[in-house]
Amino acid sequence: MPELVADVFARGCASRRTLESVTGKWGVLALVALREGAYRFNALRRRVDGVSEKMLAQTLQTLERDGLVHREVLATIPARVEYTLTLLGAEIAEQLFTLVQLLEARVPQVTEAQAAYDARPK
Amino acid sequence: MPELVADVFARGCASRRTLESVTGKWGVLALVALREGAYRFNALRRRVDGVSEKMLAQTLQTLERDGLVHREVLATIPARVEYTLTLLGAEIAEQLFTLVQLLEARVPQVTEAQAAYDARPK
Repeated sequence: MPELVADVFARGCASRRTLESVTGKWGVLALVALREGAYRFNALRRRVDGVSEKMLAQTLQTLERDGLVHREVLATIPARVEYTLTLLGAEIAEQLFTLVQLLEARVPQVTEAQAAYDARPK
Repeated sequence: MPELVADVFARGCASRRTLESVTGKWGVLALVALREGAYRFNALRRRVDGVSEKMLAQTLQTLERDGLVHREVLATIPARVEYTLTLLGAEIAEQLFTLVQLLEARVPQVTEAQAAYDARPK
């Protein structure tokens, strides 16, 4: 029986697996970076500060398989590979961008909460 | 020097660490579950299908330290511990819920993309 209703809380649901790939740390950053336009692999790696070559390659492959990222081999010499968002990827990246903006704006509150937590008697 | 502008793409930025805790798979699911109201630990563990006791405890501790989740020990016999969202946590959980709803709605497109990807000549 196909699933009639997607439920991210159910461990077997396909939406859970997509949640895992788009909300992995590198998935979020790659999708949000690609909102800015097409990127070649090495430029994207510089943009997503701290990602290893292997992790970025794995992340992009998963996002491509999920239909969120388009990988294009350009007929240049030497050949260049460019990554862009699909329409579906752009829709999800917009949501992630809103989230990222919110988190960036809330850094002072989070930092304050962490300091208060760490100062509690153990 | 304190950071003047939070930038989630910079590996040292505090917003990157919060991104990691709220977008870890279990972080997302715990925050979205807590939108539904207060949960005791074991009930939350049942709601977040598939999480281990250890991972849920670690996730909640990080979210508490970040000021997103409030942990309250109730003066009952036996003592009960209840988790709720803080105002900051509720704000972030709303964004995550919007994302989760979008991902649940896009399961058919993602599944189709995966099948097309897997059917390509290797």
